Amino acid sequence: MSNSSSGAKACDFVLFGTKGDLARRKLLPSLYQLDKANLLDKDTKVIGVAKDAFTHEEFVALVHKALNTFVKDELCEETLERFIARCHYIGTNFTEAEGYKAFHDLLEPTKRVMVSYFATPPSIFGDICRCLNEQNLIHSDTRIVLEKPIGTCLESSKVINNKVSEYFNENQVYRIDHYLGKETVQNLIALRFANSLFASKWDNRTIDHVQITVAEEVGIEGRWGYFDTAGQMRDMIQNHLLQVLTLVAMDPPVNLDADSIRDEKVKVLKSLRPITPYNVFENTVRGQYTAGFLKGSPVPGYLEEEGANVKSSTETFVALRVDIDNWRWAGVPFYLRSGKRMPFKSSEIVVYFKNPPLNLYRDSMRNLPPNKLTIRLQPHEGVEIQMMNKVPGLEEKQRIQTTKLDLSFTDTFKNERIADAYERLLLEAMIGNQALFVRRDEVEEAWTWVDGIMSSWENGGEKPKPYPAGTWGPVASVALITKDGRSWDE
Amino acid sequence: MSNSSSGAKACDFVLFGTKGDLARRKLLPSLYQLDKANLLDKDTKVIGVAKDAFTHEEFVALVHKALNTFVKDELCEETLERFIARCHYIGTNFTEAEGYKAFHDLLEPTKRVMVSYFATPPSIFGDICRCLNEQNLIHSDTRIVLEKPIGTCLESSKVINNKVSEYFNENQVYRIDHYLGKETVQNLIALRFANSLFASKWDNRTIDHVQITVAEEVGIEGRWGYFDTAGQMRDMIQNHLLQVLTLVAMDPPVNLDADSIRDEKVKVLKSLRPITPYNVFENTVRGQYTAGFLKGSPVPGYLEEEGANVKSSTETFVALRVDIDNWRWAGVPFYLRSGKRMPFKSSEIVVYFKNPPLNLYRDSMRNLPPNKLTIRLQPHEGVEIQMMNKVPGLEEKQRIQTTKLDLSFTDTFKNERIADAYERLLLEAMIGNQALFVRRDEVEEAWTWVDGIMSSWENGGEKPKPYPAGTWGPVASVALITKDGRSWDE
Repeated sequence: MSNSSSGAKACDFVLFGTKGDLARRKLLPSLYQLDKANLLDKDTKVIGVAKDAFTHEEFVALVHKALNTFVKDELCEETLERFIARCHYIGTNFTEAEGYKAFHDLLEPTKRVMVSYFATPPSIFGDICRCLNEQNLIHSDTRIVLEKPIGTCLESSKVINNKVSEYFNENQVYRIDHYLGKETVQNLIALRFANSLFASKWDNRTIDHVQITVAEEVGIEGRWGYFDTAGQMRDMIQNHLLQVLTLVAMDPPVNLDADSIRDEKVKVLKSLRPITPYNVFENTVRGQYTAGFLKGSPVPGYLEEEGANVKSSTETFVALRVDIDNWRWAGVPFYLRSGKRMPFKSSEIVVYFKNPPLNLYRDSMRNLPPNKLTIRLQPHEGVEIQMMNKVPGLEEKQRIQTTKLDLSFTDTFKNERIADAYERLLLEAMIGNQALFVRRDEVEEAWTWVDGIMSSWENGGEKPKPYPAGTWGPVASVALITKDGRSWDE
Repeated sequence: MSNSSSGAKACDFVLFGTKGDLARRKLLPSLYQLDKANLLDKDTKVIGVAKDAFTHEEFVALVHKALNTFVKDELCEETLERFIARCHYIGTNFTEAEGYKAFHDLLEPTKRVMVSYFATPPSIFGDICRCLNEQNLIHSDTRIVLEKPIGTCLESSKVINNKVSEYFNENQVYRIDHYLGKETVQNLIALRFANSLFASKWDNRTIDHVQITVAEEVGIEGRWGYFDTAGQMRDMIQNHLLQVLTLVAMDPPVNLDADSIRDEKVKVLKSLRPITPYNVFENTVRGQYTAGFLKGSPVPGYLEEEGANVKSSTETFVALRVDIDNWRWAGVPFYLRSGKRMPFKSSEIVVYFKNPPLNLYRDSMRNLPPNKLTIRLQPHEGVEIQMMNKVPGLEEKQRIQTTKLDLSFTDTFKNERIADAYERLLLEAMIGNQALFVRRDEVEEAWTWVDGIMSSWENGGEKPKPYPAGTWGPVASVALITKDGRSWDE
């Protein structure tokens, strides 16, 4: 089934929750882009499922509107026509098997594999599985794609995964973390293992520390109620930042197969030093934004947002010092931070190399700035190396300064559109390659570690520290890294 | 006396051979540029010396014409006036002390140190020294700058250096190799020792091999007679390429002082594996250009140039495999090549790193292209790293390709003029810093090694192999590197 160099074989792509935000913003546009790139088999169907009793025309109008609104480039009429012709709709209550009978008219299991995307609340993942099963719609090659969050703690994630596993084997389950679909995140593996310049020095002998930042400019975007039950730790750190961390830190895999890579990722998660009530204050900072200014305009605080409970102590910012207790990384801290209402949107990984053993330039520069490798995920994907060079010019014989060697993806690959993460992931699910999806043990190891922090915060009565919107979080975040003699990348 | 962060103290800069090509093309324009950059002390004098009985006005006209012709940017009137006011002329036969009396009227040894630049044939270096001495013009802080060539073999270089050393101590002698004044060559030291990315992996565990190329587009430029007695080996390899090689290969110096650096350079030269009649054919290629085409126009062969002796077997191209028998470089060949009438002008150092221990991408790419670091000296100084990146796009999941991270000096330091090598070197000589000049033992070690090659060629009756002008030398040059499973950088 695996075929990584071209499009996927024909499938029935079933989109549960086709009316929702994710489906309209990301999934339908991504399917359209795959179609445009000729990566969908001619027989592939797209079957939207929601509760409403839409006519075919109403559904087509919904798809059309979603594409019009959320596809960035102008729509291609030819693709649009082809794509619309693939679209089918089934209106059913997700939790009642009776409504699933309609699938039998559309699906052809002997000709096309069914790939179901659960863009619904996770609380009904189990019900959907049960209904599919009752209608005998599950075969050994049927796949399901699960959108996060998979639970809000280890226990609740187990409940969801257990239900799903009653009907599907692990090799049929594709858990999405869209960060894994980003070009630069995938490029991390090439960068690390196809370049001896990095391959041979990716450890505690040559790397001083690593920073991973995911800064959002946006606030709550009308999702106060949802977000408040999660918080930044569960919403960003547990999945995106830990996933990125595992790819940066993992040992070389045996090969590039899905389980070889995921085996290594799990080993990293297992090596994370637990954060407990004993060390939680030293290694974590929680923040919550207050009113402030963003790009010159006033914005409200988290507790002043529409729908806010003014007593909420949910964090909108987290900074962590993470220690990885394994042979490779002993003594090399990973600093993570993620927050809302930061001064600008920015996701990046910065690897700080150790300094040369001796500073030959000590007369002109007391502290040599280290080499650093920056991998930008957002807003402009790219790779950058900070190096020291001699300052040109006659006056400055021995003076050196930092300069940058730059590889911008958008500049370098001018003619190539950088695909959205979801395009990549939908395609992989249709192809049947799990490498970019999260295995159950990864989810559980991540929750185990995150639960330790959450409960330590709770035990300690730790309230989030206020920070004005439009700043880089509470000053305690600066202190977290400064006390180690380091500073956040700027 | 050392003062590396600003201009030099006042001096009497004496330019022997002020009418010559080098003085007019390079030295006078460089002095003008130093003046323009406010790096000459207000009391510094420039004293031209030649055989002609010029009046002051005639000499000023010569200086003016040289600047008009060879300074690239428009002349600054203010600087020009100031510079001309520094200019003095002494007409004398270089070899007769009597004529040197005129110096007494101009020099003031208690106020200004004398720095004499010998832009004359080396055969009269000794005579000039003797005359200066007879007129009591030599003091402990008097310096002399010697232009190459210092001899044409070890013995003849010793004759010159011995004569000079009768009058001057080694710390008063500044032997020019203008490659050492180039920004990128100086930057080599910063690149190697201020960047842990390179500092910690600059040896036979991580580097596969190194290539140094100095390709000239020009042919003989009317100097057939001179060049024919030298050849490419003596004219380019013995000095420029070996100097660059020592900077690439040297161990970390104790500090950045002149003798600390030169001590390390000498150690490299002493470690060069001798080339003898036994291994000369395996490790060297000699070439001589024949008629051909350069950028579409026909050009004559070396033996058809004006003034050519058609029986000459002087080489205009050399390719070498150099082994450095020391702990750091054992097993890492350095490939050197330099020739005239190459397809275009290009000087570069390319460091090829070893491949990662395992090719994880072996399914899509049988041989992983290595990381390489390119240091361009000409025509556009810059630094470049070749890396492997994932090919963006959905179709090409596991495919990787080479991409370049680039640091162009002219682009990066837009507002800064890149100084000519001679400006740097004249300034250093006036400041009194010998770091960028060649010590006697360096010259002698280089000649010892080069003499071995020259005599092996002679013993073997090795004639240069023909190559058409406008090509990269004889095919044997390709074979030299190909038999080791490598290829010249393109």
